[in-house]
Amino acid sequence: MTRMDLSQFDCSVARATEVIGERWTLLILRDALYGLTRFVDFQTDLGIARNILSNRLRQLVAHGVMTRQLYQEQPDRYEYLLTDKGRAFFPVLAALMHWGDTWAFDGEPPRSLVHHACGREGVQSVASCSNCGRELDAESVHIDPLPETIRHRVDEAVERWRRLSALPTK
Amino acid sequence: MTRMDLSQFDCSVARATEVIGERWTLLILRDALYGLTRFVDFQTDLGIARNILSNRLRQLVAHGVMTRQLYQEQPDRYEYLLTDKGRAFFPVLAALMHWGDTWAFDGEPPRSLVHHACGREGVQSVASCSNCGRELDAESVHIDPLPETIRHRVDEAVERWRRLSALPTK
Repeated sequence: MTRMDLSQFDCSVARATEVIGERWTLLILRDALYGLTRFVDFQTDLGIARNILSNRLRQLVAHGVMTRQLYQEQPDRYEYLLTDKGRAFFPVLAALMHWGDTWAFDGEPPRSLVHHACGREGVQSVASCSNCGRELDAESVHIDPLPETIRHRVDEAVERWRRLSALPTK
Repeated sequence: MTRMDLSQFDCSVARATEVIGERWTLLILRDALYGLTRFVDFQTDLGIARNILSNRLRQLVAHGVMTRQLYQEQPDRYEYLLTDKGRAFFPVLAALMHWGDTWAFDGEPPRSLVHHACGREGVQSVASCSNCGRELDAESVHIDPLPETIRHRVDEAVERWRRLSALPTK
């Protein structure tokens, strides 16, 4: 099946998905943000096939998220370093981790991020309004301009949020 | 090829990836957070095959991210509503959108989130220390406990961050 190319969609989420939406890519980025750079280390940590890892790294380089640099000659060996674009992905990963900590474990999650400066655990990830600074959730925002395909659903959506508010937790 | 099940990994990112890592799932969640609930609306907006959409929605329900509710009888029709777990995904999507806005477009992104209360555009997503409140990036945190496979790389990683700091933007 031909895959649809999301990279030209008029939507940041779609374009971001084109970059990080392949299986394993998020975990490669996680490892890179932990500090791993070498093929063999990614492979050891993730336990995935060489061809898959190789493909994902190549894609990340193609998307400008990582850069490939020679670190040893004869035999030539390369490492994969995050670019600014790759390092800027940290808040996404922190938000995903926060969500996973809250919803994917019963009880305490097994690992935490520790802030070097204060030595304490815990990262929170908050979306806020860049104008007034208040914390935002899905109910407090709308997308603008509305995609045509969604426009006719907007009024119903508002009503739906009200119903959602009355939904049980699970 | 058998897919590795990430849902039992000792890592929030891996477990979250098991839930949202399939192609289209992030875009379905995006649409749900915009307010869409009906199969036909998701399909119209995304333009994907019925069987793929059906599979992804079923997975989201299985993972407790959405709930399926009857909204019409004879013929029976169902809608898909976000649970608290699904609505809690908003900061991840906001962070992803923020990243896409910054890195996936030349110039202005085509759509923005608008805060109802103040009527202004712009969402920022920040990871901060839940102890001291300061903003965090990849260099200011480490994971604890360190996975065994990464332990021997930590000192090198610290050195690498220093080199990364000198890397060009792209």
